[in-house]
Amino acid sequence: MNSRCVVALDAMGGDHGPGVVIPAALDALQSSPQLSLVLVGEESLLRGFFADGLPERLTIRHASEKVEMHESPSKALRSKKDSSMRVAIDLVKEGVADACVSAGNTGALMAIAKFVLKTIPGIDRPAIIATVPALKGHTHVLDLGANVDCTAEHLCQFAVMGYELVRSLEGKDNPSVGLLNIGEEEIKGNEQVKRAAKLIAESPINFVGYVEGNDLYTGNVDVVVTDGFVGNVALKTSEGLAKMILQIIRESFGRNVFTKLAGFLAMPALRAFRGRIDPRKYNGASLVGLRGIVVKSHGNADRIAFRHAIETAQREVEHAVLHRIGERVAEVFAAAESA
Amino acid sequence: MNSRCVVALDAMGGDHGPGVVIPAALDALQSSPQLSLVLVGEESLLRGFFADGLPERLTIRHASEKVEMHESPSKALRSKKDSSMRVAIDLVKEGVADACVSAGNTGALMAIAKFVLKTIPGIDRPAIIATVPALKGHTHVLDLGANVDCTAEHLCQFAVMGYELVRSLEGKDNPSVGLLNIGEEEIKGNEQVKRAAKLIAESPINFVGYVEGNDLYTGNVDVVVTDGFVGNVALKTSEGLAKMILQIIRESFGRNVFTKLAGFLAMPALRAFRGRIDPRKYNGASLVGLRGIVVKSHGNADRIAFRHAIETAQREVEHAVLHRIGERVAEVFAAAESA
Repeated sequence: MNSRCVVALDAMGGDHGPGVVIPAALDALQSSPQLSLVLVGEESLLRGFFADGLPERLTIRHASEKVEMHESPSKALRSKKDSSMRVAIDLVKEGVADACVSAGNTGALMAIAKFVLKTIPGIDRPAIIATVPALKGHTHVLDLGANVDCTAEHLCQFAVMGYELVRSLEGKDNPSVGLLNIGEEEIKGNEQVKRAAKLIAESPINFVGYVEGNDLYTGNVDVVVTDGFVGNVALKTSEGLAKMILQIIRESFGRNVFTKLAGFLAMPALRAFRGRIDPRKYNGASLVGLRGIVVKSHGNADRIAFRHAIETAQREVEHAVLHRIGERVAEVFAAAESA
Repeated sequence: MNSRCVVALDAMGGDHGPGVVIPAALDALQSSPQLSLVLVGEESLLRGFFADGLPERLTIRHASEKVEMHESPSKALRSKKDSSMRVAIDLVKEGVADACVSAGNTGALMAIAKFVLKTIPGIDRPAIIATVPALKGHTHVLDLGANVDCTAEHLCQFAVMGYELVRSLEGKDNPSVGLLNIGEEEIKGNEQVKRAAKLIAESPINFVGYVEGNDLYTGNVDVVVTDGFVGNVALKTSEGLAKMILQIIRESFGRNVFTKLAGFLAMPALRAFRGRIDPRKYNGASLVGLRGIVVKSHGNADRIAFRHAIETAQREVEHAVLHRIGERVAEVFAAAESA
């Protein structure tokens, strides 16, 4: 494991900007003596947070612009060359930082990261991979919105990258990979999914075949592969359902004085429950397939959530994920070409 | 409203067959004096449930075969012409029944229903529409697995059918219809979704534009339109997540004697919570776009859930949903052709 790790943070990104990024950065620095952080953004604004000077292992890198949350990716790419997002990615490209984290606009982050860092040989398109809690452990899902019209070849590349990412990060020898499909016989799957299944089955990863939507949460497989449209819908649907369920639980306990009292007594159990599905613990989706580590935080991440995103980036650096994915992809797709 | 209503039940379908269908049928008959039911299946077996003779408004129609849960739809269609599923659909075709309900194999049900009943003029493919609970009211979602490779025209047909179904069933003047998409700027939507949005916007329904996965549960729109692959994944993902959450709640209250006591005290609140998201209340997905009413029950529906599916069929008959969808589709697509 690499002992030192430098992560560049897009301090202006997300709904809350430096108000969340800086406290999260301080928390991360405190818990990890190996970590150094670079805050990227409007320098005078950022300095204002540190009346007593910068703490150890924290530096500031000025960037004069900011990518807005609803700005078009191509506009952000073309016209904001000094945005905090762009500069954070540039630092990775230049080797100043080992990884970067941004809570900014996903489309812009993907476009800029792809332009600046380029994809690794053998990969046509980067993908976004995130982790969700499952009954047993958790599940890694990709792609989550970077690619809406995927070919079978793209899905196969995602499968290989997801496999190696989980293998490196979690120290699992041979994580299982499933391809998301629907369960009806014969009307099963669209053409590109069927073709992808054949391709993945021929690759040297532990492919367990088709899985269904519920398998995101069973923990039966380590990695679920799907295209960005379906993946994004599955995740957003989950967010909507979880929010509704938590709201209904609140309402159920708020109905009258008895249920309120019960809710008070049930607090430790409800807290344990919330702790297990707390999305903040799972914050930090990785853009894989690039020649650099880029982690996307949820736009409205709070201090705890953003800190998890920083830790995700740090873990990927320490486990040499980039190098290992590159090697695996080269091996699989070189083998496929010579076959 | 039509006062009398005859519903044919595939008594052999689903995981439990007549053991669930018959008790559910008796419950439905008891609560609705307008309803008559025809149990379709192996006559001697079904008679065995009625030692004292058949109750009023219940008849048995013999069918010698049964479509298995994992049988291929084309095989079921070709070779099982006397299956309980087929005969129940035949009864609708012949006008003996106003609707039919089956908990059997979805693919086979769709294939047989399409073959026997045919689609209504203007509709290329039938769709499956179901209802999910939302923070405000509930949401209707289609398609849920009948069509995996949809064109923009298909999605537009689904939108029009969903609109009219909800309009007829719920007495809403102008229900809102959204098209499921992902929220990233520029990388937003695949080509067919973008084309579908244009087509739907030109149709005379209340189209509110794109919605995202979480809107299945916000209640912000009445109808969410998507292709069968995405719809099926969204629903299965929701099932998986809800199951995980309920399991974690159980575990959280089971941790120790204090949380167990709290769980006991919290029972009324937890019951109210479960009541609001009870999937049994939402059982009964409709196959729309056919010249007959066909309702699909979940395969492992219990007595309460199957009864809800019967009631769904009955409501569609009473609200003349078939006729109204036919009229609406004729109006919209005739107008489109003459435009």
